[in-house]
Order: sequence, then C-alpha cells, then structure tokens
Amino acid sequence: MTVKDYMQQLGRQARAASRDMLAASTDDKNRALVAIADAITANRELIIQENARDLENGRANGLEPAMLDRLELTPARFDGMIEGLRQVAALPDPCGEISDLKYRPSGIQVGKMRVPLGVVGIIYESRPNVTIDAASLCLKSGNATILRGGSEAIHSNQAIAKCIAAGLESVGLPASAVQVVETTDRAAVGELITMAEYVDVIVPRGGRSLIERISNDAKVSVIKHLDGICHVFIDDDADLDKAFNIALNSKTHRYGVCNAMETLLVASSVAEKILPRLATAYAEKSVELRGCDRTLAILPNINAAKPEDWDTEYLAPILAIRVVDDMTAAMDHIAAHSSAHTESIVTENYTKARKFMALVDSASVMVNASTRFADGFQYGLGAEIGISTDKIHARGPVGLEGLTSQKWIVFGDGEILN
Amino acid sequence: MTVKDYMQQLGRQARAASRDMLAASTDDKNRALVAIADAITANRELIIQENARDLENGRANGLEPAMLDRLELTPARFDGMIEGLRQVAALPDPCGEISDLKYRPSGIQVGKMRVPLGVVGIIYESRPNVTIDAASLCLKSGNATILRGGSEAIHSNQAIAKCIAAGLESVGLPASAVQVVETTDRAAVGELITMAEYVDVIVPRGGRSLIERISNDAKVSVIKHLDGICHVFIDDDADLDKAFNIALNSKTHRYGVCNAMETLLVASSVAEKILPRLATAYAEKSVELRGCDRTLAILPNINAAKPEDWDTEYLAPILAIRVVDDMTAAMDHIAAHSSAHTESIVTENYTKARKFMALVDSASVMVNASTRFADGFQYGLGAEIGISTDKIHARGPVGLEGLTSQKWIVFGDGEILN
Repeated sequence: MTVKDYMQQLGRQARAASRDMLAASTDDKNRALVAIADAITANRELIIQENARDLENGRANGLEPAMLDRLELTPARFDGMIEGLRQVAALPDPCGEISDLKYRPSGIQVGKMRVPLGVVGIIYESRPNVTIDAASLCLKSGNATILRGGSEAIHSNQAIAKCIAAGLESVGLPASAVQVVETTDRAAVGELITMAEYVDVIVPRGGRSLIERISNDAKVSVIKHLDGICHVFIDDDADLDKAFNIALNSKTHRYGVCNAMETLLVASSVAEKILPRLATAYAEKSVELRGCDRTLAILPNINAAKPEDWDTEYLAPILAIRVVDDMTAAMDHIAAHSSAHTESIVTENYTKARKFMALVDSASVMVNASTRFADGFQYGLGAEIGISTDKIHARGPVGLEGLTSQKWIVFGDGEILN
Repeated sequence: MTVKDYMQQLGRQARAASRDMLAASTDDKNRALVAIADAITANRELIIQENARDLENGRANGLEPAMLDRLELTPARFDGMIEGLRQVAALPDPCGEISDLKYRPSGIQVGKMRVPLGVVGIIYESRPNVTIDAASLCLKSGNATILRGGSEAIHSNQAIAKCIAAGLESVGLPASAVQVVETTDRAAVGELITMAEYVDVIVPRGGRSLIERISNDAKVSVIKHLDGICHVFIDDDADLDKAFNIALNSKTHRYGVCNAMETLLVASSVAEKILPRLATAYAEKSVELRGCDRTLAILPNINAAKPEDWDTEYLAPILAIRVVDDMTAAMDHIAAHSSAHTESIVTENYTKARKFMALVDSASVMVNASTRFADGFQYGLGAEIGISTDKIHARGPVGLEGLTSQKWIVFGDGEILN
C-alpha cells in the first residue's frame, strides 16, 4: 500500500469514527479516558521497554542529547500521562452547550450549539507523552484524531497507541477514533495536511521550522504559533516595584518558553531609575543584556543591540532593552516587531492602561502582570493543546473549546419564509 | 510598477490603516458610513455614467445577459447601496466588547475582548453594489479592506471607490482603510490571496468555480461555502401539514439560492400519504421531480434519480426525492451527500428532534422550519458578508462578528508567576 493510500484509509476511518464520537455521551468519553489511563498503567513495563528501544536506536543514530531527553519516558513523564488523562476526564465537556437561543420575529428560535470540529490531525516531534496529551484533549472534545509523532518515538508511540485502542474499545467507542500513524515515511505528513476531505484542522506542536513547513504546505486549517517575541513596557506612570518584579519574572522565570519576554521597553522618564536596578538583578541570573543607544547611556557595560535583536526570539538568558519616548513609541515598536503573542504594560495610569489594552493587537494583552501568565492553565482553560498567534478561529492559549465549533440550531413550529 | 509591487503596496497601506481603524471610535465609523452614503448620493450622475460605460463595454465584449444584469446599477440597486450604508451604521459595534472576565487563583483577572481581524480581502464578481456592501461591513467591524471586483465593473467600482475615500477622509479616517484594486490584471487576485503578511482573511463572493480556485491557491484563511445541498427530512412522526408547507417553501420560495432544499427525504411510513400531495403542488410550480425507486413506486410519472442527483446543487426548479426507512437512514444519506450547509427535520417526536439536532453535522440544523431561514438577516445578525460551510472560525451565516476575533486580556496588580 502506498503512503498516500494508507493515509487516505486513516482519513476515511477517522471521518467515520468522528460520527461515532459526535454521538458519544460525556460519560462514554470520560470512561474511555479512564480506561486508557488504566491500560497505560497495566502496560507500564511494555511501554518502557519499547521506549528503551527508541532510546537505543536514537543513541545509535547519534541523536542530540536534547532530543534524547525529550524522547525519554521518565517515571515523572509516565505518571504525568496517567494523571493528565484523569484530569481531562474531570474537565467539563464543551460539546452540546447551547447558547444565545432567541426568538426571531418570524417565530423561529435561533441559537448556537457547540460541537466537535470533526477530525483533528496532530503533528509533533519525538515526545511520546504528547501522544497521550493530544489524544485525550481531542477525545474529550468529541473529535476523531490522527496523530503523527516523530519517527524516533515510533515504538513508544505504537505501544501507547495499543493502550488507547484498548481503552476506546472497552467502552464501545471505535479504536479508529484515535489513530497513530504507523509509518515513519515523511510523505505521511504531506498527505495528512492536504487531505481536506478527511481532516478539519491540523495542530502542529514542535519547533518553528516544523510549524513553518506545515503551514506553508497545508491545505487544511492550521492552529499554530511561530514565534513568541513578547514585550513588557514600563510606562512613565509605572509603580517601579511592580515594574521590577514583572520585568524580572517575565524574563527569568523560564527561558525556553514562548511567553517569556524577549524585549523590554522603558519610558525614558523612568529609565534611569529602573534600569540600573534591573541590570543588577539580571546580572545575578547571568542574563545577557543588549541595549539601544539610550540604554547604553545608562548601562554603559552591556552589549549594543543590533537591528535584528528586536526581531529575535532568544529562548535563552538574553534580553534586548530599548528606551522609548512614551507609550505611543512603545506601541509603534510592538506593532513593528511583536509576534502578536503577548505584551504587558506596567502603569498606574487608567487612560494609558485602557488605551494599551485596546490598541495592542496581540493574542494576549496585559496590564501589570507577568507575560508568563499567557498559558491555558493560568487562564483557566484546564488544558492546552497549543497557542495560536493567528486571528482566525482560536487565538492565544487553545483549550478544549478551540477544538470545537458552533453550529446554528433552529427550533420551529412549521414556520416558512414569506 | 509590477502587479506584485502594486498589491504589496496596497497590503502595506492596508496594514497601516488597520491600526487607525483599531483606534477608530464607534462614532468615527458610523459617521464615515453616513458620509459615504452622502457622497454616493451626491455623485449619483457620475456613478451611473461610469456604470453605463461598463455596460457598453460589456455588450461590446459579448457578456452574457445574466452578467450584464448583475453589472447594472439599477435605481433599486443604487438606492439599496445608500440604504445599506445607513443600516450598517445603525448596527451595534461588535468591537471592544469584553466577556468572561474572571479572577483566577493567581490574582489576575482574565477575559476576552472582541477586536477586528485586521485586513480583510474581498474578491467578487462584476456586481458594483457589492463594493459598498462589503466595504460597509468591513468598516463597521473595524477592519481595513482590499476589494477586488470583477474587471467588467472597473469603472463603476472606481467611481464608487472615490466616494468611499471621500467619506473616510471627511471624518479623519485614512482613505487606505478601504482600497479598491485598480488593475484588472488577474494576477492581482493571486497576490491578494497569498500575501499573508498583509491580509488576515479572504472572503470570496461569487460562483463555485471562483471560490474553489481561490481556496485552492490561498495562503490566507478563506471564509467560504462551495455548495448548498440542503435536505428536508419528513419523519414518521411529522405533522403532515407542517411537512407539506416546509417541503414546498424550502424548494419553491426561491430556486437560485444556497439555502434552498435540493433533496427531500421521506420516511417510508408516511411517503404514500405526503408524496402525492406534494407532487401536485410541485407540478403547479413546474418543479421537475427525480425520485428513487421507492419514490417512483408512489409517483410513477416522475423521472428516475441518477446517483449524481444526490450530490447536485440544482439552483433550479428540480428536486431529488428519496424514500428512506427511518431517521437513521436519513442521517446516513445526509452525512454522505450533504454540503454541510442546512438540514431540517419535520417531526413531532421529542427524542428524534433532539437526536437529529445533535448528530447532524451541518452549519444550520433545524426542526420544523424551512431551510430558507438559514440567512444572516433571519438569524438576527443584521447583515451578512457570506456563508461558511467550514467549521473553522465562522460557521453558517457570517455577520459583523465573523469579521472579528477575540484577544485575551489580563488585568493584574503586579502579579508574577511563582
């Protein structure tokens, strides 16, 4: 069977299974999640064994240590999979919710019902625990799923896939509701992202190059974010203690995450007061600072920022700093350089807070809070399948609701259009 | 200047104007709409003159009568443009609405704010009144717009564009908030739908072939529908008077519209009672019937349906009829043949009504109502930019809200992540 035929078959099966998933009750879905958790627990030895095979092959093929690390199902990650399944089972079911039901002058009653998207394709790198993570969110939101993990994790993923299938079947749901692609042929990805007949949305999880390639080639809608170039702006009217804490936390709480601050903007009137204090704190955490000319006038010992620094997501202990005239200049900088992920202003000024909130065009806009809060769990979504910096469909952290759609429903009593 | 350079320039200007539109108040936008209506009124002679030029060229180039008809700005269409602008000015502004604002355990307050998408590209055929229709909805929803109408309407559209620009400038908004593409080169469409840097969404309006071509080639999200193969299912438990009225209205109220019924499904237990009565009524309206074998057994004088009839959008006085065993068989037929636009069940049975509503995966699902109600005005949206049969972003009739997005907003008091 060619890769194309194989993927088309998965697609047809997923489309058929999506009808069963639409009919599945909340209880069916929750029992499936718990049954999968039980199957994973019961097959711990086998899964760890298959993971060891992947690790061995990875080492033999000279995989980088960082990739080997992500590939490993450590005891904590293994327990995390089981815990995650139980947590998703405990979340409210987004499907079937009816809202905005109103009578119209014609007599019909019109509203919206939240429903699954249908078939979700997930493409991710060699992190076997993502298989469970993604499968559980798609299952709970009533979607059928096709999962395509990195080829280095193929044995781990196949072992996990067997547990998922067993769990689904034990509660009477079709095993094809969650299908893990069995071929490591890269052509499978190309098929998955172009078979719009069978797949409603693609969620790529992984590095920028993977996501960029997928969104360039996809014929199916993609929920994605490419960069997280997040800004904090310290306004003239900032409370400088809040500013200090937020600027420090946004950069240094974790470096390799998309919601970390990459550029700090400071109003010129407060720059001399706040920057030396911040520079000392950053130095203690070994954060390299790269400043504009006006920053260098205050902090002469740091490096000069080059133009490309304003457009770089460091994902590292490096911070670009720019002194700006005022909030307007800060918003101009953000409009020119932001990746539209998350921006925060620190200010006590009511009018400026309101203006910044209204005019900054990013997925998350904050006043007096660390950019690190831009996260599905912190926002109360209960789970996160990804983050979107697009404006269509889902924006910012995407939880179960982002894996659903709303259809219109009409209750009538024999009404016809005059 | 090449077409590519020209379109890139429009894109840059639109992106810049979208920031001004984001900052525009509700009053600014409403005053602009009224000012445009005034400019259109004041330039009636000129616009009609330019429209006459387009009509003359069209006739000289052998345009079909149906196309010439759509191209003509009749007095009714002209007045409709002005009336439409005033109606859109009277609609509530969707932008800035804040919802779901809640405190989280961390102390931050998280909610969503409705905001414009940014830049909307509209591609349409040679109907000059669509220029005003589309421009007004994009303007009211706070978006910058690039309009690309059919080349046959170029002079009419340029004359209308001047009125739009004058209206925008008279209230201090940039003329580049609404740009009408000045070249008739087809390459302009190719640029518009691929410059994702400058365009957030494309709304194609027109025939199936136009929309299909655009969605195949686009690198930007497209809000679209291809077909309207709508079904009415008359259940065993239908009130047969309601069934008669709904089946007649759904087919014969208007033939050339996407929400007209194209296939009637009838439960076998009521087929003998309802079909002859319906056949007489359809015959009076000269609707050609094409039936399955079981339908032919009841109505021997109609044509036999071929397999392709179940997948055809007639947009004409033709109706396919199929007798099915029960609701499950009807839903199977719908899942196999529907274009996911609108389906309606006629039944008095509570359980079946509820099940049909939950399990039919179309943009609009109805109980005891004519499919003709699937329309933005009937649903209370106040206006309609198009209809979407996709599940991503907007579904079904798309009004002002479909031209917006929601960003996350966070109000803090200096919170940092622990």
